[in-house]
Amino acid sequence: MLTGKNYIGLNLSGTGNTTFQSINPATGESLPTVFFEATQDEVDQACVLAERAFPIFQSTSIRERANFLVAIAEEIDVSLELEEMYCLESGLDTTRFRVERLRTTNQLRSFSAHIQKGYWLEASIDTSQSNNGIQQDLRRCMEGVGPVVVFGASNFPLAYSTAGGDTASAFAAGCPVIVKSHPMHPGTGELVVQAIIRAAKRTNMPEGVFSNLNSLSFTTGQKLVQHPSVKAVGFTGSYSGGKALFDLSTRRDEPIPFFAEMGSLNPVFLSQKSQTLRSEELSKKLAISITNDAGQFCTKPGLIFIEACMNSEEFINSLGEHIIAMANTTMLGAGILNNFQRTSSDLVKLGAEAFVRESTGKGQGTNTLLVVNGNDFLSNPQMHEEVFGPFSIVILCSEIGMIHKCVRSLKGQLTGTIHCEKEEIEKYKSLFELVRQKSGRMIYNGVPTGVRVYGSMTHGGPFPASTDPRFTAVGVDAMRRFLRPVSFQNFPDILLPDCLKDKNILWVPRRINGEMNNYLDVQKNGE
Amino acid sequence: MLTGKNYIGLNLSGTGNTTFQSINPATGESLPTVFFEATQDEVDQACVLAERAFPIFQSTSIRERANFLVAIAEEIDVSLELEEMYCLESGLDTTRFRVERLRTTNQLRSFSAHIQKGYWLEASIDTSQSNNGIQQDLRRCMEGVGPVVVFGASNFPLAYSTAGGDTASAFAAGCPVIVKSHPMHPGTGELVVQAIIRAAKRTNMPEGVFSNLNSLSFTTGQKLVQHPSVKAVGFTGSYSGGKALFDLSTRRDEPIPFFAEMGSLNPVFLSQKSQTLRSEELSKKLAISITNDAGQFCTKPGLIFIEACMNSEEFINSLGEHIIAMANTTMLGAGILNNFQRTSSDLVKLGAEAFVRESTGKGQGTNTLLVVNGNDFLSNPQMHEEVFGPFSIVILCSEIGMIHKCVRSLKGQLTGTIHCEKEEIEKYKSLFELVRQKSGRMIYNGVPTGVRVYGSMTHGGPFPASTDPRFTAVGVDAMRRFLRPVSFQNFPDILLPDCLKDKNILWVPRRINGEMNNYLDVQKNGE
Repeated sequence: MLTGKNYIGLNLSGTGNTTFQSINPATGESLPTVFFEATQDEVDQACVLAERAFPIFQSTSIRERANFLVAIAEEIDVSLELEEMYCLESGLDTTRFRVERLRTTNQLRSFSAHIQKGYWLEASIDTSQSNNGIQQDLRRCMEGVGPVVVFGASNFPLAYSTAGGDTASAFAAGCPVIVKSHPMHPGTGELVVQAIIRAAKRTNMPEGVFSNLNSLSFTTGQKLVQHPSVKAVGFTGSYSGGKALFDLSTRRDEPIPFFAEMGSLNPVFLSQKSQTLRSEELSKKLAISITNDAGQFCTKPGLIFIEACMNSEEFINSLGEHIIAMANTTMLGAGILNNFQRTSSDLVKLGAEAFVRESTGKGQGTNTLLVVNGNDFLSNPQMHEEVFGPFSIVILCSEIGMIHKCVRSLKGQLTGTIHCEKEEIEKYKSLFELVRQKSGRMIYNGVPTGVRVYGSMTHGGPFPASTDPRFTAVGVDAMRRFLRPVSFQNFPDILLPDCLKDKNILWVPRRINGEMNNYLDVQKNGE
Repeated sequence: MLTGKNYIGLNLSGTGNTTFQSINPATGESLPTVFFEATQDEVDQACVLAERAFPIFQSTSIRERANFLVAIAEEIDVSLELEEMYCLESGLDTTRFRVERLRTTNQLRSFSAHIQKGYWLEASIDTSQSNNGIQQDLRRCMEGVGPVVVFGASNFPLAYSTAGGDTASAFAAGCPVIVKSHPMHPGTGELVVQAIIRAAKRTNMPEGVFSNLNSLSFTTGQKLVQHPSVKAVGFTGSYSGGKALFDLSTRRDEPIPFFAEMGSLNPVFLSQKSQTLRSEELSKKLAISITNDAGQFCTKPGLIFIEACMNSEEFINSLGEHIIAMANTTMLGAGILNNFQRTSSDLVKLGAEAFVRESTGKGQGTNTLLVVNGNDFLSNPQMHEEVFGPFSIVILCSEIGMIHKCVRSLKGQLTGTIHCEKEEIEKYKSLFELVRQKSGRMIYNGVPTGVRVYGSMTHGGPFPASTDPRFTAVGVDAMRRFLRPVSFQNFPDILLPDCLKDKNILWVPRRINGEMNNYLDVQKNGE
């Protein structure tokens, strides 16, 4: 049952005068629940509660936090209203819902398993005799930075929102979370909030470990990022939104760690042979990657660089025909749709050729493939900006030198994809090197969409793909964003965190005087 | 032999019109070498050269980089002019020189040993069958972020300057370095530059792996931080300098990772029993820690909180007498001295009582211990700012509640020290908790000065101790500041970095499908 209220810990609150409703993008109709925009007072309450909960949450055992994470996954799995609300608010279909729910719950479960292995603690112990014979003892482990604010993404109502990767990362690190729910899917958000609250109660987590605030406007997010009790932020969304909040976070009296994943153009490069030998397979694969779920993925291939050859024209036609053959799909909301239609039609005017499938149904985006040459691309800054929707630009380059020139002009990217045959690798080696310097993830002979929740995943990259290239938003190492090291010098055993006590009671891997203990032995014998 | 020139790779350049000389702080006399302030053109040259060197340096083997680091240490060890120049420029004595040189070369050697163990690569491999039966392969490792700018610190001409922790961290990560030499010890800097250049030649490092620019003014540093070829910055120094450069780094078109360690007040807390049982030992230890090398350490204890008891007056007198008994010492330079004398005498006016040993020799600072109560401290914002020099404030608190109140008012700290007897630990538990939330390193029954170069060291902390609490500036993990993850999806073995190839040819620890391989087995058998 939806209430439309803000969840300040366990307290439901809707004291403000501003309300809003979410809209079904397939019909344009408002959904019934009225959501209360959080007031300044509600923002303060949630932040202060999170600050109070922080030391209590930090002091829960790893096992308790692991159970909390699994409990959230279980509660999401049994939320019966979730599927309908998700589809109503997002325009995404039930197949996508099931994929995304599984991804979200797997993510929570993978963090649960990961924290129990103990590597993330980075326990390190140095003991030595100093020159003057005094015993010196220094130990270090990781702990949470403090309360974390999470901004839900429009395009992943589950996996990058209320109980998505940022929230799971923060909980895994022992940090209370305040979610600013996304105004395009606040109902989906509230159902997930209820799952989190049930899980928190069931596993005895402290009051204030989680709060959820509604807001249609930007102001609630701005207030949260600037609140002195908040110690870090996770954001997934547009460049303009992410950059504005990043600027606020760095201009606070106390600047705080801020991680935004802000999308990317995800350049794809096609060698001469790949166009020739895999024309049909490749053009279809790319067309699906560009138009699937209306191209509303931060890893959608937005630029396709083609080294010209005698088969390029045929390949481009094949790709264009596939783009036209793909069904139009409902976009996430009217704002996103209007922005997309305006931007893509403006860009189409700049190119010599375009393949366009006009949208037919209400709320659907126009599939578009624009074709330009290298000089067009270099001279048009608009082509260097992400277009969020079923749109991509083919850049036909007369020679590899022009491709290099174009790559050098690119900003940081989440991904870079290169298609070439094995025998062409030597020829493309410097291209691989160039693209790698700009990207968080490199793909060989594939498509960039489909971000798998693996430990080896880097979902991030040099600015503006993310605000900090040293972190990932996906995979178990995403929790690093919310961890800091603390050292303890000559501490009595009783005051040390469990992972640093003389006896390795948690059986975690530890670095002792610079050498890792043997992890398998640890598992068997506790060191 | 000093030239006073800028080192742009292997090229010596002094094309600017602005020159300066360093000054012997013990005599106030200028030293003979004339240093050329870098021009905009020289800044550009150094940055572009570093950008070009980056992919070449990244592609050197770990062994080659390890040899480079050791070679720098060896070349510093054989630099015969270094000791005299260090003492002339800094006013520090030969004992300190030898300690600091050993620390610097040990640091370089410890990074050399560390990178060869391979943990820092964080190699991770995930292979799995997807639902549709397709083999998926994702691998991840760390690599350097790009060219790094390093700012030398006034108070550590060796260990936190030209070839100090930041430079060693960046080289270890495969990042070229441009040092902005400190204008108070450019001669010491140039001798170390020559050692680095000799080492780079000897180990065949690429041209541009290292440059060194001189500057008396702030402008060269500002230009460097804003240069588009620069991808990260390491800074050690004052809050005002660090914060100004941090702001520039976040306001670039491409914001970049910026780590500044900006000092701290390093609060010390004394229980009733510790004052009583260890009065003489403790007061002497603290007095040395406050006045050693004129208190010019970022970890100097600047605040001493005392829980009042019948022995407090005696303890404070004993501490004050020790402060007065300590010899005055030459400070690093006239600017630092003047600033110190002004600030400390201003503060003395705010307290009821002070122990002062007037400076006697030229360039020497006045040892000062101010005594105030908790309310004085809470109501005077000046007392919450670091005073760089032989100065500390005793805050006599009527009860533990007042100490808690004072701690809550503190900003982030590099260190927090608590003195109490074992039987008092229970009573002080919440104090330990409070101080820990504000500190990078906790010390039990010791003094905060003496930052050991251990892997377990955290030299950093919540803002303003550092600009990012998630990193350390000291210890092998300091290289993390300059590393980023890159993932490779379905890559052919030949294109993968060595640490990710199917066969573990580097014999490094790897996480495979979420489980660490057995490191000892790896060392024996290569997996």
